[in-house]
Amino acid sequence: MGRNSVAISGDVGGTHVRLALIDKNGTILSLVKRQVKEASKDDPYAFIKAVGTWCKDLMANADQAGFGVIGVGLGVAGKIDYERGAILFSPNLPHLNGVSIASELSGDLDLPVVIENDANAFGLGEGWIGSARDWENWLGITLGTGVGGCIVLNGELWRGDKDAGFSGEIGHTTIVPGGMPCNCGKKGCLEAYASESGLKKHVMADIQDEWKNCVFKPTYPDYYIANVNNITAKMLFEQAQVGDPYARALFDRFGEILGIAISNVFTTLGIFRAVIGGGVSNAWSAFFPSLEKSLREHCSMVDFSKIVISKSSLGDKAALLGAARCAFSSFEP
Amino acid sequence: MGRNSVAISGDVGGTHVRLALIDKNGTILSLVKRQVKEASKDDPYAFIKAVGTWCKDLMANADQAGFGVIGVGLGVAGKIDYERGAILFSPNLPHLNGVSIASELSGDLDLPVVIENDANAFGLGEGWIGSARDWENWLGITLGTGVGGCIVLNGELWRGDKDAGFSGEIGHTTIVPGGMPCNCGKKGCLEAYASESGLKKHVMADIQDEWKNCVFKPTYPDYYIANVNNITAKMLFEQAQVGDPYARALFDRFGEILGIAISNVFTTLGIFRAVIGGGVSNAWSAFFPSLEKSLREHCSMVDFSKIVISKSSLGDKAALLGAARCAFSSFEP
Repeated sequence: MGRNSVAISGDVGGTHVRLALIDKNGTILSLVKRQVKEASKDDPYAFIKAVGTWCKDLMANADQAGFGVIGVGLGVAGKIDYERGAILFSPNLPHLNGVSIASELSGDLDLPVVIENDANAFGLGEGWIGSARDWENWLGITLGTGVGGCIVLNGELWRGDKDAGFSGEIGHTTIVPGGMPCNCGKKGCLEAYASESGLKKHVMADIQDEWKNCVFKPTYPDYYIANVNNITAKMLFEQAQVGDPYARALFDRFGEILGIAISNVFTTLGIFRAVIGGGVSNAWSAFFPSLEKSLREHCSMVDFSKIVISKSSLGDKAALLGAARCAFSSFEP
Repeated sequence: MGRNSVAISGDVGGTHVRLALIDKNGTILSLVKRQVKEASKDDPYAFIKAVGTWCKDLMANADQAGFGVIGVGLGVAGKIDYERGAILFSPNLPHLNGVSIASELSGDLDLPVVIENDANAFGLGEGWIGSARDWENWLGITLGTGVGGCIVLNGELWRGDKDAGFSGEIGHTTIVPGGMPCNCGKKGCLEAYASESGLKKHVMADIQDEWKNCVFKPTYPDYYIANVNNITAKMLFEQAQVGDPYARALFDRFGEILGIAISNVFTTLGIFRAVIGGGVSNAWSAFFPSLEKSLREHCSMVDFSKIVISKSSLGDKAALLGAARCAFSSFEP
């Protein structure tokens, strides 16, 4: 053990599982990416067995290199029963709902296993060796297909009431009452505006509406219609960069609504720092000016001059690093 | 000391100061109410001196009855510098801004003095011997002229980042972007809908607008016009009780907007319990049905069946009791 101990860390997504060997300094020694469909889409036990096999490969690697594996940390989207180490509700992998993935995998590997919500894992990573490493109280946000979030108070992840199974779900706070329908079934959530799925919904609605309600119409509307099945945040960001007023307006609204959501959390908690990550945060230059303007307009209690909004410094490794951090703090004395 | 110890507790409002002697069980042994104008509206030191004189009367009472006063706890609206015991910003008593009221009063009385935000004091009271006494994680809301709030996590008041000077300001979260102007200078805050000043603003706007934008017009519009300088939450509640569709619609919106604000806090923190107090909570029967409907519509992550919204059980004594609690926990070993 000692300085040679490592953790196996996993980031379990809807289509891919990434697994890594990570040491106590946050150095990634080995990283593999596997497709979920290699395992099973329907049978949770076959899926867990496949993850176990991939973990055993990493354990063999660690052994060869002279490292001792202290345990496994997995970041998973959804609601989690921390006491049972079970997934209560997973939007991406519904066949895992109710399954005690931690104890199943632990039995297979003969190693302790801990699971954590993926946005919480993001927060653990950024707080450990990322943008928030010197902060006590802050909000973490991941902008991707949806919007994830976490809250860190007194340097500790706030996990919510133990009966709730979640916390930090800023993506499902209502920002525009009666607004755009969200994936969760509600209307006007942050996620329906400031995520890839939210952007896509707005474009689809505007195409169906023949751009009638757009104040800023696209320069080449046919481009969106031709690519209707392939609208991505990346494509919209590229359109914004070349000056398309429509894509720019979408990101302006993205930043405005995100600014209101962040202001609401700051005002509720009396905090003023946030880290933003996730794939869609790559469109930073497109949404940050309107985000900043919105924070100025909507934060009345917080001194605007104190506010710090940082981009994730760990990029797509944040959740993986955080899951390792979770394993170290759970299993190392 | 021991079982005979008491605290002096104060609730410092814009027009009145209430002071009480309260024992360790939360029994109010003595209560006085003084007008701020008896002291001074302009000179903060004259005001503090007057409060000191009123405290000395209570100290004499305590002495006669054989009690030992352990210290003073004061609940005050506004932003507070907890380290200095100073008021950073008081909306009701602006002449106190920047004044170290705790050390001034402490020097005068030769007793330790602690100050606390009034909504936090409400929370300390309700958590001690009120509706939330068995809860670990919850949201407190005071509905009055404005809307105050507090957050209790792991049974402790969450005071926010120490550089922020506030927390729990749910009243200034934005619920209706671009909506009714709020006292804080922003638009669409909860306070602009679910407080006495918010209700009043809506009536004034509708009168000026000659009721044009009201879907539910008043049965006797002249009644509101005749009482234009005397619109109160109590008067509107009475109108709602006699079936005036306009007053009912105002309270329906009040409940709806309050429900969105509470849902947002629940979703952000992964909690599901709240206590609502303050004078305007007396209109409970007028706004609670729409509040409940709104929670059902806007809480997607929290199981609706777990949600508990309780009315304050301490009524207008909550903040006074909480300020005493604050003194006991600050000054008793």
